[in-house]
Amino acid sequence: MDISFSNDPKLYILLPIVYYAWQDAAISNEEYTQITQFIDKQDWLTKAEKEFLSSKINTASPPSRSELFHWKENIDRALTSNSKPKNFTDLGILLANAERISLSDEEIRSIAPKIAQLEQQLGIVSVEILSEYQKRTSITQSHNTKSSFDVSLMTELLNGEQSEIINKVKSIISREDFTPVVDSDTKVFREKVFAWCKILADAGLGSYAYPTACGGKGDMEGYFAIMETLSYQDLSLVIKFGVQFGLWGMSVMFLGTDKHHAKYLAQIGSLELPGCFAMSETHHGSNVKGLQTTATYNHANRTFTINTPQKYDRKEYIGNAAVHGEAATVFAKLVINGIDYGVNAFIVPIRDKQKQTLPGITIEDCGHKMGLNGVDNGIITFSNVVIPYDNMLDKFASVNEKGEFESPIPSDNRRFFTMLGTLVGGRIGIPRSALAAAKVGLTTTIKYSDNRRQFGPDSGQEVPILNYRMHQLRLIPYLAKSYALTFALQYLTKRFINRTEADMQEIEALAAGLKAYTTWNVRNTLQECREATGGKGYLSENRIDDLKNDTEIYTTFEGDNTVLMQLTAKNRLGEYRKEFGEISVGNIFNYVVEQAKTGITEKNPFATRNTDESHLKDANFHLQAFKYRERELVSSAARRFKKLTDDGLEPFDAANIMHPHMIQIADSYLDRVVLEQFLAKLETVNDPTIKDTLTNLYCLFALHKLDEHKAWYLEQGYMEGVKTKAIRKLVSQLCWEIRQDAVPLTEAFDIPENCLGAIATFKAAQA
Amino acid sequence: MDISFSNDPKLYILLPIVYYAWQDAAISNEEYTQITQFIDKQDWLTKAEKEFLSSKINTASPPSRSELFHWKENIDRALTSNSKPKNFTDLGILLANAERISLSDEEIRSIAPKIAQLEQQLGIVSVEILSEYQKRTSITQSHNTKSSFDVSLMTELLNGEQSEIINKVKSIISREDFTPVVDSDTKVFREKVFAWCKILADAGLGSYAYPTACGGKGDMEGYFAIMETLSYQDLSLVIKFGVQFGLWGMSVMFLGTDKHHAKYLAQIGSLELPGCFAMSETHHGSNVKGLQTTATYNHANRTFTINTPQKYDRKEYIGNAAVHGEAATVFAKLVINGIDYGVNAFIVPIRDKQKQTLPGITIEDCGHKMGLNGVDNGIITFSNVVIPYDNMLDKFASVNEKGEFESPIPSDNRRFFTMLGTLVGGRIGIPRSALAAAKVGLTTTIKYSDNRRQFGPDSGQEVPILNYRMHQLRLIPYLAKSYALTFALQYLTKRFINRTEADMQEIEALAAGLKAYTTWNVRNTLQECREATGGKGYLSENRIDDLKNDTEIYTTFEGDNTVLMQLTAKNRLGEYRKEFGEISVGNIFNYVVEQAKTGITEKNPFATRNTDESHLKDANFHLQAFKYRERELVSSAARRFKKLTDDGLEPFDAANIMHPHMIQIADSYLDRVVLEQFLAKLETVNDPTIKDTLTNLYCLFALHKLDEHKAWYLEQGYMEGVKTKAIRKLVSQLCWEIRQDAVPLTEAFDIPENCLGAIATFKAAQA
Repeated sequence: MDISFSNDPKLYILLPIVYYAWQDAAISNEEYTQITQFIDKQDWLTKAEKEFLSSKINTASPPSRSELFHWKENIDRALTSNSKPKNFTDLGILLANAERISLSDEEIRSIAPKIAQLEQQLGIVSVEILSEYQKRTSITQSHNTKSSFDVSLMTELLNGEQSEIINKVKSIISREDFTPVVDSDTKVFREKVFAWCKILADAGLGSYAYPTACGGKGDMEGYFAIMETLSYQDLSLVIKFGVQFGLWGMSVMFLGTDKHHAKYLAQIGSLELPGCFAMSETHHGSNVKGLQTTATYNHANRTFTINTPQKYDRKEYIGNAAVHGEAATVFAKLVINGIDYGVNAFIVPIRDKQKQTLPGITIEDCGHKMGLNGVDNGIITFSNVVIPYDNMLDKFASVNEKGEFESPIPSDNRRFFTMLGTLVGGRIGIPRSALAAAKVGLTTTIKYSDNRRQFGPDSGQEVPILNYRMHQLRLIPYLAKSYALTFALQYLTKRFINRTEADMQEIEALAAGLKAYTTWNVRNTLQECREATGGKGYLSENRIDDLKNDTEIYTTFEGDNTVLMQLTAKNRLGEYRKEFGEISVGNIFNYVVEQAKTGITEKNPFATRNTDESHLKDANFHLQAFKYRERELVSSAARRFKKLTDDGLEPFDAANIMHPHMIQIADSYLDRVVLEQFLAKLETVNDPTIKDTLTNLYCLFALHKLDEHKAWYLEQGYMEGVKTKAIRKLVSQLCWEIRQDAVPLTEAFDIPENCLGAIATFKAAQA
Repeated sequence: MDISFSNDPKLYILLPIVYYAWQDAAISNEEYTQITQFIDKQDWLTKAEKEFLSSKINTASPPSRSELFHWKENIDRALTSNSKPKNFTDLGILLANAERISLSDEEIRSIAPKIAQLEQQLGIVSVEILSEYQKRTSITQSHNTKSSFDVSLMTELLNGEQSEIINKVKSIISREDFTPVVDSDTKVFREKVFAWCKILADAGLGSYAYPTACGGKGDMEGYFAIMETLSYQDLSLVIKFGVQFGLWGMSVMFLGTDKHHAKYLAQIGSLELPGCFAMSETHHGSNVKGLQTTATYNHANRTFTINTPQKYDRKEYIGNAAVHGEAATVFAKLVINGIDYGVNAFIVPIRDKQKQTLPGITIEDCGHKMGLNGVDNGIITFSNVVIPYDNMLDKFASVNEKGEFESPIPSDNRRFFTMLGTLVGGRIGIPRSALAAAKVGLTTTIKYSDNRRQFGPDSGQEVPILNYRMHQLRLIPYLAKSYALTFALQYLTKRFINRTEADMQEIEALAAGLKAYTTWNVRNTLQECREATGGKGYLSENRIDDLKNDTEIYTTFEGDNTVLMQLTAKNRLGEYRKEFGEISVGNIFNYVVEQAKTGITEKNPFATRNTDESHLKDANFHLQAFKYRERELVSSAARRFKKLTDDGLEPFDAANIMHPHMIQIADSYLDRVVLEQFLAKLETVNDPTIKDTLTNLYCLFALHKLDEHKAWYLEQGYMEGVKTKAIRKLVSQLCWEIRQDAVPLTEAFDIPENCLGAIATFKAAQA
């Protein structure tokens, strides 16, 4: 009788390895040789048996397809029993026994370890392969969406007091004529956006923030809610809206006086008078203090002459300028009798009602942009354009009857920053708009990921990609951050609206910082959305394209992010120096004791190695750690700057070296503020399911930030490796848990369906 | 006589603070009060003097502009002397002395500390302000571009052996008719790109890699150089070129046999027969093993019937499909007599010469995309399309005369991966193309940053933004990485071309990994370029727009990056298991000794805290650290997987938890390979200036990577905080040094000028 597996059952012990060798694509020719050599060395096999087995592992004459199929049938039969083989050797024995010809226990004891060694040598992970063979189900396959809270309650919480106006805007943008535009011709798109703006103006939304006397509602908070909600639909519209009613209208409102309000605001709010905000120049974008445009006063006829001295002193990137704008608030250095009185603002007509450019004005189109092509950005050059006396926006400075400069603020520097301070609103509107765009991307991506299936065990249904830990780690922390930032930006808005002179500087620093912090976060969120949706994320119909390209400039708008972060950090460092100055004058002893206590309570080995889940989830731990980072970064910056300049470096050079450090200061401050506002919001929640869900999101936010900054904490000795590893593990675990609520958490954003990407409603055929 | 500063010179001591209070925008009302209170408490002032000083610090009656001007004149006069005041107190004394009425030393000794305290309380950084007042120059202002090497020699080094073909391609793309397109209508753009392809085909570039018998040059290395060089110009062109001559042509070349080569290759190479590569399906993108399209064999007439069973089994994102393709290589499951023989490839005609879609074929347009709109991606659905027997690409499988399946590779799995393995070229072409795009972005951005000036001391010229440390840190490490990746991808190309069966798996893992590693790096590079160029970076004329949006899909092309990184890591883990298996079989003792030695030499306190610059710049230190990370990540993964499954987790769940760990494995492996190839390239350099420059870039690359992974090294105890901080400092220092060579280093890429953004040639008016 010929030798065969069924005739000679002990040979079955090697069948799993032989089958694997042919089935797995990762085994190399070298390894076939290894198996053959192994067979050759086995003293429990006869020469004939060895020859038979070797013939089954010969790459020159591979087994037929049906033979492979037959082997697999044998394996499957052996695996239906209750026994659970741990490796290929166990499986081989099971196969041999299935043929009812058992080997003696002694024989098995002698053979088994040898085969186990071979498995190891071949790098076979048999536990994995056996799981596949047995079609065992995994939690990765069965994990799914299960809402644990009332979505509409969550929406209420997110909307806060602005539900009414938010819903009004949503009812407009969900209309069919507001469906987002894909791949439109620039000219057509610009007119579409203008028409949308007109509809919004007619609905009374343009003048919402203006005084009631000028046709508005005097509701600045509502204005920001409008900007934010419009951002679900189209960002060109938001920016056009913001340029017209925010920048242009509010520069008149805040920098002008009654005469300007009476003359312009109603017309601006109704879009009868489209206008621009002409600040940036080609050579001076971030550095607005360096603007070169001049406004020369002529006392003889009480006029100002607006002029662009050099080519690159022209106003650039000016929204509404290329097509629709009829006037502009122009920032220019006021010159009286040859003396420069610093930058002031003037209303300059640029086009007539027939949209003809006025004499002395040259306007070029900025041309095609990466995004926001529904906004007509232009370049304006002034060639000695004469405007009447009343066109100076004279709230902070004016020219008196005698032709002399007058201002309640003597320093040009100070006046300039006070003027700019009134325009801080842009630094609130932009991050709120950005965050809304991120929410559209996240909702689209998370809903798709819940339905899209890819990969899985060889036998069995493919797995929703949202069940993959890596996919969760890419998206769910951004979901938590979106919630965190929603609360932080609402807080900023309220503080801005209720500002007093005393806290204005702090609010400006916070707005500058949160603008940078949020827009960078949105940039990262949408990047992950793009990649997480693969090829679908590249199709314009899914909107990630436009959301990403439109918000791309938000990191530059209203000030380059790195410059703004420096500004925030400078404020923090200044505050620290004052505080420290006062302390060193006052009770230095208490301060030292306070600092030392931190050392004792936070840096003792128990704390630095504490990995209890209850500790890691404790808000006090988070707050202490966030504050420690903030305090330490700012105090070390003060010391470092002193050391560098004491060592003889010029302060400008020292500051240059410290730029990255300064950005860390701003970042740590913003982290802390955002954390605190999340906690403050949690305090207001009564519904227990909402509270639990939000608490999980909060924890993820806090721990993800600690994980992000773990290098710093490790460098400081504030945490040890064992703790940072525990945090990383907990972040992954929280993502896994929150995944079940991820879809409802995006549904709570309540974004009109026509504003989502097409794949948000994708249904997998296999689902 | 009235009290005034000039009448009562000791009051001058307080003038610097008074002047600062009005000049600086950061001082608050509260602080005016603080100053007033301070004045009130001074016993060296009379009541009248106190009243006078208080009147000068009263926000209700600020000093006039001319008074402020006059104070500043006084300060400037005092500062022209050689004395160097250290703070406002010193300056005040100087002012007092300038009026020639000195105070007694004793008086000064008593007054000075009090004022110094006030300065501290107000948080005034007088060293900074005094530097501004004195208009001292800084190295930040004077740093500039200074080439220290021969640019053309560097270009030669970068081009390697491919100079000739690279220059040929450059001579074509620098022609005026190849000027990159901005904002073109999609239809027009697609035709433009097709016309460009035709010009390239006519120049013999399309068939470059094909056998000479089919009109080619048999030069695969040249083909990759062509792809890379074309990427400077337009990425739609590159992808269209790659689809036609790479994917379509090479699927015929590698999966077909002589009969296919003879019939198709010449026509493909000349673009007479435009075609597609139809692999991805809507429901199966990354998971190509799950493809559902069927090719059913009919022995009666020896034909195959190609069919799309369910709607979402259609072929999606297929390049060349929407408009130009006349045929396609279609991947489908071969079914013979109801038995599924796995995925195979077939040539299917889809359009006639008049571009009419053939019967049974339905083609939809994918529509507008985020980028690459010059490529006509489409969706193909097959409704029982019958193709002749000869259309099966039968290199790896065929149907014999008897209608039976035949293949030299019995396992479907194995055959499928062998087939895919021949198509690995795409994973080389894509990263090389991406890197070229990044170089266009970097060149444009760095040249602009060298000329663009923004901010600076109040008095004095603004500073080139490339002199800012933060700006350097954003760009210069990417410059180093671009050099590093150039060498690594050339190495990969050579290994791919000279591959043998034995190293094929390793090369596939390397290609998959380097594709992901490079395209992610390019994504980050172009993101920084966009932000670093501010508003300019948003204008399409500067090309960062298109470069970024076109390469955006490169992270998904040829396999999603996270999936590819898993693939690479699996290979590394498999290799490790085999090695470890062999070791544990063989001499486990030696292995343990080897591991322990690492502990002794690398983890001793001297090594973990060593911050000597010579040590930090030592290639041996870098190599050891890179290898340690690679080895430790892979061995801990093996242990962790065992522990998780031993604890009862299903292997699929354990693998899921370990995805992030796996990505780290791939990353550490790729870091090490890239580092080694940079070092290998350095070995070949003879010119000392080139060598020095490249060594600096190499060091920056190595240290920047160590800085990036410092959290991991700190967690492991491989480095202590003092060392990671020293590395960070050295990274910043290297960026500062390399900045002088940054422009020439981009010039060495030798990118045709018409391919750069318009701002690359921007000249600052102030320069």
